[in-house]
Amino acid sequence: MATQFDPPSGTRDFLADELEEREQAFGVIRSVFTRYGFEPLQTPSFERLDVLLGKYGEDADKLVFKILRRGEHEASGEADLALRYDLTVPLARVAAAYGSKLPSPYKRYAMGPVWRADRPGKGRYREFTQCDLDTLGSTSVLADAEALCAQHDAIAELGLDDFTIQLNSRRVLSGLLGAFGVPDELGPGVLISLDKLDKLAPQAVVDELKGRGLAEATAGELVTVMTAPDAIDRIRAALKPNEEGAAGLDEVDGVLSLVIPQVPAGRVAFTPRLVRGLSYYTGPIWEAVAPGGAGSIGSGGRYDHLIAQLGGPDTPATGSSLGVERILAMRPSRGEARQGRLDVAVTVMGEEFAGKSFGFAAVARAAGLRASVYLGSSGKLGRQLRWASDQGARWSLIYGSAEDEAGTVTVRDMRSGEQAAVPVADLGGYLAQLARSEQADDHK
Amino acid sequence: MATQFDPPSGTRDFLADELEEREQAFGVIRSVFTRYGFEPLQTPSFERLDVLLGKYGEDADKLVFKILRRGEHEASGEADLALRYDLTVPLARVAAAYGSKLPSPYKRYAMGPVWRADRPGKGRYREFTQCDLDTLGSTSVLADAEALCAQHDAIAELGLDDFTIQLNSRRVLSGLLGAFGVPDELGPGVLISLDKLDKLAPQAVVDELKGRGLAEATAGELVTVMTAPDAIDRIRAALKPNEEGAAGLDEVDGVLSLVIPQVPAGRVAFTPRLVRGLSYYTGPIWEAVAPGGAGSIGSGGRYDHLIAQLGGPDTPATGSSLGVERILAMRPSRGEARQGRLDVAVTVMGEEFAGKSFGFAAVARAAGLRASVYLGSSGKLGRQLRWASDQGARWSLIYGSAEDEAGTVTVRDMRSGEQAAVPVADLGGYLAQLARSEQADDHK
Repeated sequence: MATQFDPPSGTRDFLADELEEREQAFGVIRSVFTRYGFEPLQTPSFERLDVLLGKYGEDADKLVFKILRRGEHEASGEADLALRYDLTVPLARVAAAYGSKLPSPYKRYAMGPVWRADRPGKGRYREFTQCDLDTLGSTSVLADAEALCAQHDAIAELGLDDFTIQLNSRRVLSGLLGAFGVPDELGPGVLISLDKLDKLAPQAVVDELKGRGLAEATAGELVTVMTAPDAIDRIRAALKPNEEGAAGLDEVDGVLSLVIPQVPAGRVAFTPRLVRGLSYYTGPIWEAVAPGGAGSIGSGGRYDHLIAQLGGPDTPATGSSLGVERILAMRPSRGEARQGRLDVAVTVMGEEFAGKSFGFAAVARAAGLRASVYLGSSGKLGRQLRWASDQGARWSLIYGSAEDEAGTVTVRDMRSGEQAAVPVADLGGYLAQLARSEQADDHK
Repeated sequence: MATQFDPPSGTRDFLADELEEREQAFGVIRSVFTRYGFEPLQTPSFERLDVLLGKYGEDADKLVFKILRRGEHEASGEADLALRYDLTVPLARVAAAYGSKLPSPYKRYAMGPVWRADRPGKGRYREFTQCDLDTLGSTSVLADAEALCAQHDAIAELGLDDFTIQLNSRRVLSGLLGAFGVPDELGPGVLISLDKLDKLAPQAVVDELKGRGLAEATAGELVTVMTAPDAIDRIRAALKPNEEGAAGLDEVDGVLSLVIPQVPAGRVAFTPRLVRGLSYYTGPIWEAVAPGGAGSIGSGGRYDHLIAQLGGPDTPATGSSLGVERILAMRPSRGEARQGRLDVAVTVMGEEFAGKSFGFAAVARAAGLRASVYLGSSGKLGRQLRWASDQGARWSLIYGSAEDEAGTVTVRDMRSGEQAAVPVADLGGYLAQLARSEQADDHK
């Protein structure tokens, strides 16, 4: 039940364990993208309203969080800023703002929150992380293949091994429409219906195509070709005589020839029905799909005129967007592997020893360990050891009257319960040694 | 001059070099805080308006970015959400929401953007990073000392070595007012004036105190005591007979006795005139100051009732806030040390060799190097090597007809210009070896 203390609808608080899993995943992605020579970019959370609106159409505009003008203008009820809706509009603005100061081609990745006033639901948030990489300024199919492979490697290094990448080209789709004589005005609708062939029965798609006004014969032929056991061969044959279709096939084959040697067998496949809803794609398009209806975990494609439409320079562009929230949700939890917050918990056996204990924690930190003193009010050892155990501490340190007299610190192994009396002056070396042997154990 | 492509007023685009320096600094801070046993927390960028407003007074409310209601409610011109103004209000909400599910004490750090509609200026932004650590649930002076030391270590590890930490206690201040018979109603104003003793001449402060209605004799006495060469001894003597003053001295001495052994000599000093404007502090307060008027680079203190005032449970609390933007601005640039974006730049000597070149980049990545193929349209080697050099690549790979015939790849050292012909099958091992010897060189 929602309470007044919950985060706003569609947003999340990330407490330590989940946050650390997310950060670890973001680190993996960053490292893959960096290895491909992409550089990071971070833009503000909000943009001027005019930069954002009208770029993706009215439906998108409705989902933008708008920021009220401030001061004397607040009463107007008008907005002048808005939280970013994606990472592509800011990229277009940056390309316009920095122009020739950017490397050419400009290979950048961006990873950060975007905001959409969507109806919140399972796996659908109003604040969520997007993770894009894009190359501006190259028309080469090498850039498309690089964007696809970098995305592939990121998914694989995040621990998913059961996924496929469907590859197509916008020009294959235009070629198909041309080869089967689909009237131009029916084109977009026909593509939307064909894209459902992975979910609906062939006859249902035929019916839908007829409903859109396509001749029954054409609808039947199209669906037959695309669902036949030898569909790929038939489609290739149908496309070849069509100029646009032949060019699309060349694009697909160009990407395939580069990518296939770099990924596991069967990972990437020409998928002629793949449409990708967004009308701004101009060349190769792809989608990474997890099995079992989990859906898209990444997508991408070439969009040679979008940057100009979004207010940037007219530059060729291609890129990938990783479905990082969905991947995080599917990812096997690291659960068991998670360690405690502390390596060394330092008890405080009375105020007179607080200074010593505080210093022992510093000694442990200098030895590279995570350490803290007990901050509670109990003077009882049992209670303090329970705290140490709750923190997942590997060792605890005890220093009371007996130790003070002997000039030693008691180092307790929290797993075995064994205790050692270590001379105060040797504590740093002793802890460093423990840390080293623990690391060696972890690597066994 | 601002153009339509600039980021919104008071916000910044971070291109790769600067962003990487920031991320490196954030990593250092995270590592220090983790070593002290603080755990991370991340809350949404916006909160419900009622959670945010009225918590810091009207002046703060004016600086909050409010988000317009959406859909049919947009026309009302009303706001229901607002971008967070700091990281403390969200902490209070989290403490209320998760209660006993949080560790006790709850030691958390948070690092992320906050937004204030302040007038932008040099070093003053509307979107900037805050970096807080706080301990909820401990009344122990150990918690105060820990918050101070963790902040100290973070500043030091960020490379600043010339700074001091001024330490005081709210109770010292109340004690001072009591000991000198300052009427209660003049207290807050008198403290504000005394805090100016580091900037104004003593007589100017006396005049200001008189202007506030303080008796001339009292004003003169106060300023004399606080500016005398033996000010600390005089103040200690004046405070001792006063109950509140004596308790304040105990707090200060408690923190000092814990902290002084852990930091360089002279780094932290009892500073009786330190006020820290914020009225919510209840115990020890401190401020880290860089010399030369650079001002505060961090601050903190105990605020035992604030979490309840902000809507959370009534819990004792203490914490530090690092002036991370100011520290970043003061930090010596890593400039020279920065490396290129690529270790290996792979040329593409004609379309027929594109696949091979694409594969060589993958081989280099598998050897742990950052690598990319040339994505431009020039077939000229000189042009492609210029690109390699612009990328800061350490090596470039060349594979044309001659190499294809010989079954080798030409590996060019971009510093020396030396070239080696490496059999294609040996490329991975060869590059891994180069990477290892390069690393060894770096560590010399």
